[in-house]
Amino acid sequence: MIAGAAAIAGIGATEFSKDSGRSELRLAVEAVRAALDDAGLQPSDVDGLVTFTMDDNAEIAVAREIGAGELTFLSRIGYGGGAACAVVQQAVLAVATGVARTVVCYRALNERSGRRFGQATMAPGLDASWHYPMGLATPAAMVAMVARRYLHDYGATTEDFGRVTVMARRFAATNPAAWFFGRPITLADHQASRWIAEPLRLLDCCQESDGAVALVVTSADRARDLRRPPVFIRGMGQGHPGGDPSETLTSGAAIAKDVAFPMAGIGLEDVDVVELYDCYTFTVLVCLEDYGFCKKGEGGAFVADGRIAPGGSLPVNTGGGQLSSFYMWGMTPVSEAVIQIRGEGGERQVPDAEVALVSGNGGILSTHSTLILTRS
Amino acid sequence: MIAGAAAIAGIGATEFSKDSGRSELRLAVEAVRAALDDAGLQPSDVDGLVTFTMDDNAEIAVAREIGAGELTFLSRIGYGGGAACAVVQQAVLAVATGVARTVVCYRALNERSGRRFGQATMAPGLDASWHYPMGLATPAAMVAMVARRYLHDYGATTEDFGRVTVMARRFAATNPAAWFFGRPITLADHQASRWIAEPLRLLDCCQESDGAVALVVTSADRARDLRRPPVFIRGMGQGHPGGDPSETLTSGAAIAKDVAFPMAGIGLEDVDVVELYDCYTFTVLVCLEDYGFCKKGEGGAFVADGRIAPGGSLPVNTGGGQLSSFYMWGMTPVSEAVIQIRGEGGERQVPDAEVALVSGNGGILSTHSTLILTRS
Repeated sequence: MIAGAAAIAGIGATEFSKDSGRSELRLAVEAVRAALDDAGLQPSDVDGLVTFTMDDNAEIAVAREIGAGELTFLSRIGYGGGAACAVVQQAVLAVATGVARTVVCYRALNERSGRRFGQATMAPGLDASWHYPMGLATPAAMVAMVARRYLHDYGATTEDFGRVTVMARRFAATNPAAWFFGRPITLADHQASRWIAEPLRLLDCCQESDGAVALVVTSADRARDLRRPPVFIRGMGQGHPGGDPSETLTSGAAIAKDVAFPMAGIGLEDVDVVELYDCYTFTVLVCLEDYGFCKKGEGGAFVADGRIAPGGSLPVNTGGGQLSSFYMWGMTPVSEAVIQIRGEGGERQVPDAEVALVSGNGGILSTHSTLILTRS
Repeated sequence: MIAGAAAIAGIGATEFSKDSGRSELRLAVEAVRAALDDAGLQPSDVDGLVTFTMDDNAEIAVAREIGAGELTFLSRIGYGGGAACAVVQQAVLAVATGVARTVVCYRALNERSGRRFGQATMAPGLDASWHYPMGLATPAAMVAMVARRYLHDYGATTEDFGRVTVMARRFAATNPAAWFFGRPITLADHQASRWIAEPLRLLDCCQESDGAVALVVTSADRARDLRRPPVFIRGMGQGHPGGDPSETLTSGAAIAKDVAFPMAGIGLEDVDVVELYDCYTFTVLVCLEDYGFCKKGEGGAFVADGRIAPGGSLPVNTGGGQLSSFYMWGMTPVSEAVIQIRGEGGERQVPDAEVALVSGNGGILSTHSTLILTRS
């Protein structure tokens, strides 16, 4: 009922920097306007707005600033990066059921010049009271505990982590929008970088970026008549494993995939390009395993031969990802997938990219969202 | 496609008080468990959780505490009371599209013993920077400005406001769960109550309550086989008017109704019972107008003859509403509508209540959500 019912008809972004010099609301509005221009639509066409619970830009403020008309759909998804694909799912649910016609998804923040997520400045809330007093007060510190267990349980090494970032930097080196454009690294560079939270090094951690990304979602039929080639949303799913994911080292991808792939009628073997949520190198290995590209604990071996690198058989994070390009809470993989499916990747374009698998991941390993995007 | 596809199969609540003596998470879990018991379902059946952005209970914390299994749907709606019916709409979207099978909507807070919403203690955020410096730092202060304009533009009086609370107190007097059970008032009592923010008096303002409400939504077909009589969700909509609603004194109900009523195939004349979001008496008049029960500015005259009171032709807020029973951010009208459609209202039951109209309202007049619930 919802598979293929809607498409991404437009995409917009600001530049990505370490100091945008303007408000998050202005960033949001710039990205939303750019996405509407891209689709050939007007602000008055917008009747739905979806974002992350952690976005500080009120929907009605964005609506007012762009000059939107009456709105009939507003929603938000929690858990940071875990929301990334789920905000797009929200737009599909609205469009497919007729609740709204033109839904914009946005994420805007000054994550480097403003409140840095990697610093323990947030009010932690009740649920954090188990681990904050132990010093586990940043995502890196919390993920490090799980990454340590992964190393122990599967005999993996930090070089397995490092190869992920080396390959991401190779892609970023060819992406003019990436922070590390033209700056590839070696595994030795990774191994020499300082600890952030052992066993995670500086080069295991994603960027902190200022900027914004927005997407326009409308019905597949309507998208065909708009300015740009539609990117069809064939499959989607959210997943939270219940219980404690650090026990199993399994992310919500293992659940979300069982919703998304049957919905799309597509198998793993059909996937041409993969855009994974890479807050840390470790997350990439876990998600490759949980989607079923390889067995649990074999992620390191799976990527060791370069198959996820430029020119490989399964290109992953082709824009350089959040590790090397920019960190926009999962809108990074979503937007790169749109670019690849449209064939607009320039030097980094994956030839004949027809099917993209995209993930968002949040709350250490727990909450997850998946999209399967196709050219036709 | 979604009209009548899903139903409310269970409802649960804690007691409502001014000092619950326990955490908001515990309140949430108690209400969710009660709702599942009501439906005859187990925590492991739950695969979706929806709440308000302003709820402090993480979905995954609630899932863990109740013992839920794998989750495939998580979402939140913003704008406080404006979300009330929209959280139910979220559940319907998930169930109708097959993304989830058993979705629980919850709202839990210690609004009286914890952080009181009527006090200016929140970090206001960018969008509040226009009015916070002017002293407009509480909902009452902000709504008072709009209520003042309403009095001016339409020649209404504060007695028009007062009659709303007098009628709510008549209903509350017959509701054992209401704060003001057994304590009706007169219009003179209203007029003698102190100003909170002129022209709003103490008795124009809703309760502050500790407690929790939860609802279980599943497919209509499945709900028919469960323990309790299903309450079918026939129509639903969100609405935000764009621009500045204080200019027009028109709420998002005027937009949401045009989504919800055509979806339900039901007209205003079919409505047996109305449960409106009554953060203030003023809001009830505006919503009656915006749904089209009377013309703009004629709300006061419309209610003056007692038609919305017990025994009237259009009973409104039959449990006493948030003004007189308990304030649970719009879950008050939603839960009372379920009680009425099930015929479980006891002394306050509206005879033969087949169709209920329910509203949530937030952000002064701006964001709105509507449900149309039916017995068959």
